[in-house]
Amino acid sequence: MSYRAEIIAVGTELLLGNIANTDAQFLSEQLSSVGVDVLYHTAVGDNPGRLAEVIDIARRRCDLLIFTGGLGPTYDDLTKETVCRAFGVELEFHPEIIGEIRRYLDTVFGAEAPKLDEQQAYLPEGCAVLHNAVGTAPGCIFEKDGVTVVMLPGVPRECRYLTEHGLIPWLRERHGGVILSHDLRTFGLREPIVQEMLADLMDEAVNPSLAPYAKTGEVMLRLTAKGETAEECEELMAPLFWDVRARLGEYLYGVDVDSLEQRSVQLLKERHLTFSAAESCTGGLIAKRVTDVPGASAVFMGGVVSYTNGVKAKVLGVPEVLLEQYGAVSAPVAKAMAEGVRRITGSDLAVSVTGVAGPDKDDRGNEVGTVFIGFAAPEETTVRELHLGTGRERVRTLAAHHAFDILRRYLTGLPIE
Amino acid sequence: MSYRAEIIAVGTELLLGNIANTDAQFLSEQLSSVGVDVLYHTAVGDNPGRLAEVIDIARRRCDLLIFTGGLGPTYDDLTKETVCRAFGVELEFHPEIIGEIRRYLDTVFGAEAPKLDEQQAYLPEGCAVLHNAVGTAPGCIFEKDGVTVVMLPGVPRECRYLTEHGLIPWLRERHGGVILSHDLRTFGLREPIVQEMLADLMDEAVNPSLAPYAKTGEVMLRLTAKGETAEECEELMAPLFWDVRARLGEYLYGVDVDSLEQRSVQLLKERHLTFSAAESCTGGLIAKRVTDVPGASAVFMGGVVSYTNGVKAKVLGVPEVLLEQYGAVSAPVAKAMAEGVRRITGSDLAVSVTGVAGPDKDDRGNEVGTVFIGFAAPEETTVRELHLGTGRERVRTLAAHHAFDILRRYLTGLPIE
Repeated sequence: MSYRAEIIAVGTELLLGNIANTDAQFLSEQLSSVGVDVLYHTAVGDNPGRLAEVIDIARRRCDLLIFTGGLGPTYDDLTKETVCRAFGVELEFHPEIIGEIRRYLDTVFGAEAPKLDEQQAYLPEGCAVLHNAVGTAPGCIFEKDGVTVVMLPGVPRECRYLTEHGLIPWLRERHGGVILSHDLRTFGLREPIVQEMLADLMDEAVNPSLAPYAKTGEVMLRLTAKGETAEECEELMAPLFWDVRARLGEYLYGVDVDSLEQRSVQLLKERHLTFSAAESCTGGLIAKRVTDVPGASAVFMGGVVSYTNGVKAKVLGVPEVLLEQYGAVSAPVAKAMAEGVRRITGSDLAVSVTGVAGPDKDDRGNEVGTVFIGFAAPEETTVRELHLGTGRERVRTLAAHHAFDILRRYLTGLPIE
Repeated sequence: MSYRAEIIAVGTELLLGNIANTDAQFLSEQLSSVGVDVLYHTAVGDNPGRLAEVIDIARRRCDLLIFTGGLGPTYDDLTKETVCRAFGVELEFHPEIIGEIRRYLDTVFGAEAPKLDEQQAYLPEGCAVLHNAVGTAPGCIFEKDGVTVVMLPGVPRECRYLTEHGLIPWLRERHGGVILSHDLRTFGLREPIVQEMLADLMDEAVNPSLAPYAKTGEVMLRLTAKGETAEECEELMAPLFWDVRARLGEYLYGVDVDSLEQRSVQLLKERHLTFSAAESCTGGLIAKRVTDVPGASAVFMGGVVSYTNGVKAKVLGVPEVLLEQYGAVSAPVAKAMAEGVRRITGSDLAVSVTGVAGPDKDDRGNEVGTVFIGFAAPEETTVRELHLGTGRERVRTLAAHHAFDILRRYLTGLPIE
């Protein structure tokens, strides 16, 4: 789409540094994926005068303005009123929205539902309403003087919902044709390596396009094609898709999945297997991440967070002699932890993590970042030794990534090494 | 300080949504804490023409412009050159910086140190240099035509370092005086209620100022005073501080702490007590959050994530008859879980959570959001029954909040109810 977009966040809390502007990140990612060029992000406080000036600048340099925040009763609908004044658009009452908001409040708060502010049912005349199923403030889209204006609530959960279910479908529908993406997720390769592996493909790729996105320990490749129909998009993508797949090989852990844990849950379900986790340095992170996936209860039996040697011995049955001889951060203890949690939960498979997340070395002098991951399957128990560098949160995140990676490798018949 | 500041991030990766603009958040928090008014955030891509236009707008509405990103060899020093051209300032060679960069590269990369780009030693004439001990690109500050211009690298670690060690000290030194804040954190009150309780104080408060910040289940009140010395600030804050404390009463869980879990760890350490957790619907979140706090190992023995009835019975020793008679989501099971995990880990105190996080009701028809929190202490075990509404992530977060709240209430002698 040939839009030039500006994302305008309204909220003093951004300027005070209370929160990061994650809405702008999410919107940018989504808009880029349908071919919209995002040229500017702007954040401004809850101040009508300054907001009006920002609108004035934005409408001269962009033709798609997306506002986040400043909707709803606590803000006196600052954004809605200022935007409508700037574009000379009236607010009109949408009675159908009242019912929606009422139902939402009753469901969430039950008997204690707060008083409903009818002001929220006023929206710009002639706008397309973006219905909000996860909060009270609806979003909207209107066009005036060659500029398309979108207003979304600032609460990240609501902003995401309305972007995915309202804005992006609206953009797709408006512009005919179809834009399709596939996300190929990898674990175990650093971004420069992926760049090198795929450099020639990324340089050439136009439709479909191919772009990398990196975060801790992971690189995601997004393929995007534009065409008249979904079938045409798929056909356009197919050759590149299979080429990229082949080059990524066993580092590719999933296509169009959200995370290693989601992929693991998916594979466990397919194979009718269950698992459990014994965690020391990750302290519950593996359990927390797997239970973030709705439906995890079908495959996850539970886990033990064994933060002390006492719990390792007493609950998981790790022999005291191993703890004394090798220390808690060791391959034999990782092995015994995995076997222990598998035994007590009765799961088919089990992972264990023991290591040094930092900030300090452990009492045996193991460096920060030393981590052992045990994996117990019916046929044998294996241990992966890792040296993950520093940063408490980083080490914990990477250790959990590795645990899920081992699980998905086992479940897809790859070597665990 | 009476600056009107704009933070300008340069980087196409922001506009593609690859990363969030966390530099802007960090800078805003730091600048607010020394009394600088941040009025705008702007992000623009690696495009000299658009950057020049952004500078043109910013210098007309603000007098402190802080640029992040676009420094260093990979960006061809886009920011430095465009900013200097806009302000008519020449770049001059700073030979002393060459030595600093060389030493940094040798330390980090050793024998593999990359080739040094001398371009990085060119900085605006007459600028104050902000020395970078954690990377290669130095920052700088210069003043021209009544505008103060700051340039910082975009890598978050380097941006933070130069802000804390360069920019903030420079601002303090230039402007004398001290700004101090205290954060009062509450749990259990919704924001409108806090607003009502403190409305008269918030309206009157100038120096010190008083402002509320809300997130899921929590409201934080920040008191900020400006004065000549730290003592003067404390004196200015004292009457309001004690008045707010008194009004918040038992809902205030801590002053100048980060979170309920940090406060719990602090209290447990002071009282030389340990705790453990048995988690069903929170699935490891309590363990994960407490082990996010460095030093948690002194007070947290570990936990059990009992996602199935089998694990509840076999590992935690919850009597099968309770599970059959009342179901897993019930007060008797919460009680037995807390007592079970306390027994097997040998901790002084224990919390348990069993509930329905959603998306669906459980098989006994318990609504989403129904949660029982058990708390086992040497003298007795109590259970808190909650109805937390919908939203899987929200229910899990609130349930964990309540568990930590019960712990801190017990540890400070408050009723648990």
